[in-house]
Amino acid sequence: LAAGFTDESTLPVQDVRELLDQVLGSSRTGRTALQYGTTVGDAQLRELSAEHVRRLDGVRSSGESTCSANRCLLTNGSQQLLYMTAEALCDPGDIVLVEDPTYFVWLGIVQSHRLCARAVRMDEQGLDLAHLEEVLQTLKRNGELRRLKLLYLVSYFQNPTSITTTFERKAGALRLLRSFERAAGHPLFLLEDTAYRELRFHGGEVPSALTAPGGQERVIYAGTYSKPFATGTRVGFGFLPEPLFTVLTRIKANHDFGSSNFLLQLLARALASGRYDRHVQELRERYAGKAAVMAKAMNRHFPPGVLRTNPDGGLYFWASLPRSVKSGIRSSLFRRSLEAGVMYVPGELCYADDPSRRKPNHQMRISFGAASPEQIRLGIARLGPVIKEAAMAEA
Amino acid sequence: LAAGFTDESTLPVQDVRELLDQVLGSSRTGRTALQYGTTVGDAQLRELSAEHVRRLDGVRSSGESTCSANRCLLTNGSQQLLYMTAEALCDPGDIVLVEDPTYFVWLGIVQSHRLCARAVRMDEQGLDLAHLEEVLQTLKRNGELRRLKLLYLVSYFQNPTSITTTFERKAGALRLLRSFERAAGHPLFLLEDTAYRELRFHGGEVPSALTAPGGQERVIYAGTYSKPFATGTRVGFGFLPEPLFTVLTRIKANHDFGSSNFLLQLLARALASGRYDRHVQELRERYAGKAAVMAKAMNRHFPPGVLRTNPDGGLYFWASLPRSVKSGIRSSLFRRSLEAGVMYVPGELCYADDPSRRKPNHQMRISFGAASPEQIRLGIARLGPVIKEAAMAEA
Repeated sequence: LAAGFTDESTLPVQDVRELLDQVLGSSRTGRTALQYGTTVGDAQLRELSAEHVRRLDGVRSSGESTCSANRCLLTNGSQQLLYMTAEALCDPGDIVLVEDPTYFVWLGIVQSHRLCARAVRMDEQGLDLAHLEEVLQTLKRNGELRRLKLLYLVSYFQNPTSITTTFERKAGALRLLRSFERAAGHPLFLLEDTAYRELRFHGGEVPSALTAPGGQERVIYAGTYSKPFATGTRVGFGFLPEPLFTVLTRIKANHDFGSSNFLLQLLARALASGRYDRHVQELRERYAGKAAVMAKAMNRHFPPGVLRTNPDGGLYFWASLPRSVKSGIRSSLFRRSLEAGVMYVPGELCYADDPSRRKPNHQMRISFGAASPEQIRLGIARLGPVIKEAAMAEA
Repeated sequence: LAAGFTDESTLPVQDVRELLDQVLGSSRTGRTALQYGTTVGDAQLRELSAEHVRRLDGVRSSGESTCSANRCLLTNGSQQLLYMTAEALCDPGDIVLVEDPTYFVWLGIVQSHRLCARAVRMDEQGLDLAHLEEVLQTLKRNGELRRLKLLYLVSYFQNPTSITTTFERKAGALRLLRSFERAAGHPLFLLEDTAYRELRFHGGEVPSALTAPGGQERVIYAGTYSKPFATGTRVGFGFLPEPLFTVLTRIKANHDFGSSNFLLQLLARALASGRYDRHVQELRERYAGKAAVMAKAMNRHFPPGVLRTNPDGGLYFWASLPRSVKSGIRSSLFRRSLEAGVMYVPGELCYADDPSRRKPNHQMRISFGAASPEQIRLGIARLGPVIKEAAMAEA
């Protein structure tokens, strides 16, 4: 129950087969797909991606905006976009703001670029704006604002907490960042990671930060087709304001001069044919069902002292044990869980190194992405007693 | 005639179609291919890649060596390996040695990491070892050896000159590097880029530097399936000594946590089925034919003052005009060529910024990769008079 993988049984094998039959069925389209593409990537997929995000955002006009095809860069999963954004904006020692907790792979990127992360608290509406302002003030007071470059936000069904940040909070965060730009001496960007956006199974759509005031100039939108369609394809996309778009295109040219044209054309066909949308619809139903199975199993097997989120989308439950019960990688709870054949992601891995607070070590990310309903029932039935025992030992 | 693309008509559309029909024909293999893989990449393709290079190298035993599956990292084209190697080994201001001239995209990587390149002369056997020693001595004398990290070598049918470095030269370069390691205070690596290795149409195989003394500890082997099979797939691979293998795997995890599993499994099937080898054989015949067409056209249309290489493989001719005739991007020759509908890569783009010599500006890389035989004949027939005219204007 640790993996952020998607459900094997949902992978669109037949869709991909039929789409590729079309691509490879003619030697003209087949050859084009097997030849090099361009660094920014297939023109049709860029256009379709822009339309796609505009539709999700409920925006009509295309016009000249950050969310138009000519600001769209196609990448190897959205992760490559995150990596290149850090590479473009940050020098060693620079500071990035992250949610507390946040996506642990982003913390790896932060570390690899020798950056410092400062954590901003969250509540059930997402980012805590009062705390964001406090952190910004502290940076300003300490003369560290010049080293701040961006705020990283996993805005939909966050990994790991499954919290969605409301539109108002996103707009507020942009406003706050903007108000500190003069003191920083440069733009402060909002990097919005929307990896789980389309895996919604309850509730209405929330527009992205692109549509908030200032969003066109300050939001870097990172999207992906891996999770909603097929993780094996690793196709992501980004929308970036200039001059960042040009800078990242140059970096991408150095990384690999363009993603696999073959995969990009496959995705373009999937989107254009409507198969993509149909597939996402099926996925949502599948994950809604599995989330319900997991919730029911948790109600039955977890002791009452465990608090958990109730996800409206994404792949994860986030469970908080009593503070005294350690869940970390060296805890007996983690070891006993492995012995029982169940793995979770220890919450401590999702917290940035930030000296201003102690790292919580009593939480767990539990995924319903890869496991089957039967495996979920079984896993939670095994995990429950291990948690009870650990809580008992502490009491 | 500028593009390093491969020939569209050679792209294995039917092969790919049939292979994917196999992969996607069963829901078991289909789902596996569409799911995330691992950071290092598909185990079968790593094993096949190790066998493949050992066969090319004429090495029997597998054993524990740098060229074994567990030192193989699968990448997005070999370019990603080059990029990550620079990222792993070099800090800004560090020095890398390159051939003079060298692959211009590598010079972009050098620049993006803010490295300095020092150029080592070549002759028809490849790298000039006497000059390599001279450059190493100079670095030592100037106290710059501590900043030297690696020698980058495009060892087969080099881009742009189409020269192949002999095995003796590779072994000699390794020996020289080793002898300066004490003064450098750290290992000096040989990054062997073998992008064109399989595109041989005359002459015998040359073993890689992996098989030279010390090669197991100091050679980073960068290979690719893009050019020999299908550029649209962008699948490359590398063999690295420890601890570099582990370091690059970590960097790859940050870049994109693994290449598209779907593409890796496609390549694995292509190799395992023998289709890959058959395809490479066809490619060689095709390129041999086109190289002959281009040579004949050059003999007919180029003025006698133009010297050119006679490639035994790869995709390029390298032509040297009289020194007084400029071929650079701002030259009238380049402009006039464009007006005549012919584009080449100006030689000056292939030279590193090295203050110890003036950048030559009288050469051109002319590719027979993408163009058809008819286009080659027509292009050279147009380029010839433009060169004659430029030479006349100088005389």
